[in-house]
Amino acid sequence: MNKQDLINSIQQKQSFLCVGLDPELEKLPPHLLQEKDPIFSFNQQIIDATHDICVAYKPNSAFYESYGLAGWQSLEATKNYIPNEVFSIIDAKRGDIGNTSKMYAKAFLEKMEFDAITIAPYMGKDSVSPFLEFKDKWAIVLALTSNEGSADFQKTLSVDGKQLYEDVLLKTQAWGSDENMMYVVGATRAADLSAVRKLIPHHFILVPGVGAQGGSLEEVCKYGMNSSVGLLINSSRGIIYAGKEKDFAQQARKEALKLQEEMKVHLEKVFG
Amino acid sequence: MNKQDLINSIQQKQSFLCVGLDPELEKLPPHLLQEKDPIFSFNQQIIDATHDICVAYKPNSAFYESYGLAGWQSLEATKNYIPNEVFSIIDAKRGDIGNTSKMYAKAFLEKMEFDAITIAPYMGKDSVSPFLEFKDKWAIVLALTSNEGSADFQKTLSVDGKQLYEDVLLKTQAWGSDENMMYVVGATRAADLSAVRKLIPHHFILVPGVGAQGGSLEEVCKYGMNSSVGLLINSSRGIIYAGKEKDFAQQARKEALKLQEEMKVHLEKVFG
Repeated sequence: MNKQDLINSIQQKQSFLCVGLDPELEKLPPHLLQEKDPIFSFNQQIIDATHDICVAYKPNSAFYESYGLAGWQSLEATKNYIPNEVFSIIDAKRGDIGNTSKMYAKAFLEKMEFDAITIAPYMGKDSVSPFLEFKDKWAIVLALTSNEGSADFQKTLSVDGKQLYEDVLLKTQAWGSDENMMYVVGATRAADLSAVRKLIPHHFILVPGVGAQGGSLEEVCKYGMNSSVGLLINSSRGIIYAGKEKDFAQQARKEALKLQEEMKVHLEKVFG
Repeated sequence: MNKQDLINSIQQKQSFLCVGLDPELEKLPPHLLQEKDPIFSFNQQIIDATHDICVAYKPNSAFYESYGLAGWQSLEATKNYIPNEVFSIIDAKRGDIGNTSKMYAKAFLEKMEFDAITIAPYMGKDSVSPFLEFKDKWAIVLALTSNEGSADFQKTLSVDGKQLYEDVLLKTQAWGSDENMMYVVGATRAADLSAVRKLIPHHFILVPGVGAQGGSLEEVCKYGMNSSVGLLINSSRGIIYAGKEKDFAQQARKEALKLQEEMKVHLEKVFG
């Protein structure tokens, strides 16, 4: 999916919500455990209930890998079930030497046909570039994450006066464009978003941490929105675990709708 | 496997060689393509031919993931085939927020029973710590990698006078010990190894880049060895693709033996 298609989808749905599909068997509604593939059944119903009010889905690969072969199967089935007009992100945080990153890029962007993949930048240019070679596909590079440990290295100040995450933003954007790169910037640091926006005025930012991790949607919009929206806001646990009964998917929709309605208000500033 | 067992294995085999199991279908001996699981058959024969002269195997997960479900199956079969007395490393370069890293740790260290996993440190402490909670299991943290892009961020100098990889070595070692952490330091920068050794005198270092990537074994030993060896030296392509005919495994053994014989000489300095 290209950038304009994503913006069109946001305008049409009045939403820039990304739903994180991070299922754990212990947290699923118990009645699903009878199903042949409980994780896929769960995702399927979440997708059915939310695809008209979100613009992206983001399965985190760790949750699937933890179930081995069966998990990998659930991930493939889930990807195939995501409607083509919804942006699909595999949250895999990969990154390796050039020829190895290329294997990851093929695995997720070509073979599994995700639109985008999250990337860890520690290994530098040749670890990121292989993800930028596919038409209308995206590398979403970790810049400033929402977890406690993000302060350990990402905020380290260099002799050039830049924090590491700023250096990541500056260097990596030269390797691609705002048509094939996005960045992860956590919502728990909404004020940092205005510094980020100065460095990358045009790129989309994927913002995790709204909801369970405590970030505020209003602050994220205030500091992070640009003239073509420029934000995908992810919520996982707050949506997918809203209910544990047979109506869990409707409960999930309710939570997603709350966010979407709030987003609608903020979108007026962009689309009028 | 604990540290003393690893050292004993090195002493007994007179080797600190790690064989990287990174198979690509296009590079396999053509006769294997008839097999039901060519990648596993390939690995199986490589393991049969080398397990008495190497102390570790390191499959890189990217190579398996690129074949989807079938690849994941080959990876599981390969892990199960590695003899228990040989240290097994999954080269996965994972790292995510705490509860997600925990899923990766369970997937690879608990479910698949690898002894060790490589970890990207960009997200900080809570992304690394979950891998340190399993008895006799190891997190191998990326410090200074062997690729060209390693200079982009790993060598960035902080206002405290430390390069990022040095900061990674200093901070992360406080999160575990030399009994559950190792570091990746590339062989293409052998001279950097003496700086690394000052910061982590006791930890094992996993050294990729000997062979195909151009590093020298002699230099690595000169700068990186400590009083309990402290080195695992990886070679992948130089060994596994030594031959393309039916005797490929014997050709691989020949290449592995060359390295092992060189290692034997260097081990005299440690074991006398």
